[in-house]
Amino acid sequence: MASRTNKYMSLINQLSISNKRAIARVISIVEADDKKATKILKEIFHKTGNAYRIGITGPPGAGKSTITNQLTKHLLSLSKSVAIIAVDPTSPFSGGALLGDRVRMNDIGILDNVFIRSMATRGSLGGLSKKTIDTADILDASGFDYIIFETVGVGQSELDIAKVADSTIVTLVPESGDSIQAMKAGLMEIADIFVLNKCDRPGADKAFISLQTTLHLRNFSPNDWQQPIIKTTATTNKGIAEIVEKFEEHRTYCKNNSTCLQKRFKNYKLRVINIVETSLKQKTWNELNIKTLENSMEKVLSGNLSPYELADKILQNK
Amino acid sequence: MASRTNKYMSLINQLSISNKRAIARVISIVEADDKKATKILKEIFHKTGNAYRIGITGPPGAGKSTITNQLTKHLLSLSKSVAIIAVDPTSPFSGGALLGDRVRMNDIGILDNVFIRSMATRGSLGGLSKKTIDTADILDASGFDYIIFETVGVGQSELDIAKVADSTIVTLVPESGDSIQAMKAGLMEIADIFVLNKCDRPGADKAFISLQTTLHLRNFSPNDWQQPIIKTTATTNKGIAEIVEKFEEHRTYCKNNSTCLQKRFKNYKLRVINIVETSLKQKTWNELNIKTLENSMEKVLSGNLSPYELADKILQNK
Repeated sequence: MASRTNKYMSLINQLSISNKRAIARVISIVEADDKKATKILKEIFHKTGNAYRIGITGPPGAGKSTITNQLTKHLLSLSKSVAIIAVDPTSPFSGGALLGDRVRMNDIGILDNVFIRSMATRGSLGGLSKKTIDTADILDASGFDYIIFETVGVGQSELDIAKVADSTIVTLVPESGDSIQAMKAGLMEIADIFVLNKCDRPGADKAFISLQTTLHLRNFSPNDWQQPIIKTTATTNKGIAEIVEKFEEHRTYCKNNSTCLQKRFKNYKLRVINIVETSLKQKTWNELNIKTLENSMEKVLSGNLSPYELADKILQNK
Repeated sequence: MASRTNKYMSLINQLSISNKRAIARVISIVEADDKKATKILKEIFHKTGNAYRIGITGPPGAGKSTITNQLTKHLLSLSKSVAIIAVDPTSPFSGGALLGDRVRMNDIGILDNVFIRSMATRGSLGGLSKKTIDTADILDASGFDYIIFETVGVGQSELDIAKVADSTIVTLVPESGDSIQAMKAGLMEIADIFVLNKCDRPGADKAFISLQTTLHLRNFSPNDWQQPIIKTTATTNKGIAEIVEKFEEHRTYCKNNSTCLQKRFKNYKLRVINIVETSLKQKTWNELNIKTLENSMEKVLSGNLSPYELADKILQNK
């Protein structure tokens, strides 16, 4: 047992930007085994808190991958290191068919000072999985300056990104317009920065004004962060430097701002709740209880067992 | 304590289609108090299993409320009773602004043999709340012939409807077309019946053929249920009778079909899991643990407490 602990310790000590292999191994251990994960994450916690965490979200086709790509290149040119966590909320039914975009990221993945990891949210209740945040901590402890969370932008994980990011960028395109605003009211509220991408397309100015008007209609107090709208054409790198400027501005703003602090506290609480409940579930769904559940189906079919009675039985076996 | 139990028992014994007040009270008790809910649901379980449960889902603007309305009127004309559970997946950020549609339902809500209840999914992880299914059981035990679940059609609850319904109707409009198919692959898979509504609009035939082609491209075994597509114009009642025919056909098909049986088992299991985990959470988040969480924020701010250590502390207090 002692030698095993030593093994993790040795691996943890190897965590650094220049040792992608060690990073990948630690992430894989944390993904596969929750008990080991707990040990590792306790151990590395004191090394975390230095990376700045950026969330990029928005509807499909808004160019999130391209923006992530260009943003990363720009940060590299400023001598910064970047880790990317690509969050894929695969459909619980069809599995993820949305991964095509990822291919484009390969050209930056091989660069020094860049690390990319794709993570599925499949099966986790309530959006971003605990593993996603654990992975961010590993990357943080490894010394990356920036961690970018990027979602494919379908469903709940799109909004959950704001719970793990210091600055959240919501990406829209001129065509997004009304439908986005109607369907995804939440998107407006999680954005620290709006990026209106593909601004070489017709309708860009109109969309910009429309978005600006929507934002002005909301009630701000004078001290609130004013969500900027940045026009970009990510494919030609137009506007990318401005995104970096804006999230650095937001970072500075947040340092002593009570709203940002409250948000951090709230996110921390959510994380603790998530860890507690994941652990409870693991203890409850032991072999005996899974068997109890599986073997009760005949009684169920005959209508002789209510789900509440079965639940009681399982809770007693805990 | 005995008199309290007698009080519930008396209320439970009053559950019947003609006593909407008793139904509403029992639902309110179940919504407000989980311990009482468990008792009540154990008590009524032997009366459940007779109602046929229909889910209606689809994108916003597809006319789900109008279809529910017309479908209910048609079932009433066949001397059936109908309970409607309107599931409103309010945004965790903005609160529900999507309830406008409900107003239209008021004209059937006052009829005999009809009961309508709106339920929010707010705050519940993973879509449809436990309360929604509990409510369906209460309505089932009250003697309704049909229970219709209708979602506003945003987010996960849209897909979760299939986990509680015997037949799931997915409503589309000619305009839905490609974007729906791309974004909501899950919708295709949960549908037992497709309704192409607003077929008086241009593009209806094209949309019908496009949907038909998409369905034919999927691999079916000869014994599989063939998802029908029904063209409707709900506002003029066109196609409504055909929807009823089709879900009755599906109901008959399912009686001895192993796939349907497996689905029922799976849904039952999910329900038990849901009950177990809700109960665990209630026990864990006692006053002491909520305080422990709230009071740890200073240590967190100074970086002296990892979320894993705090989670351990809470798990020990359980």
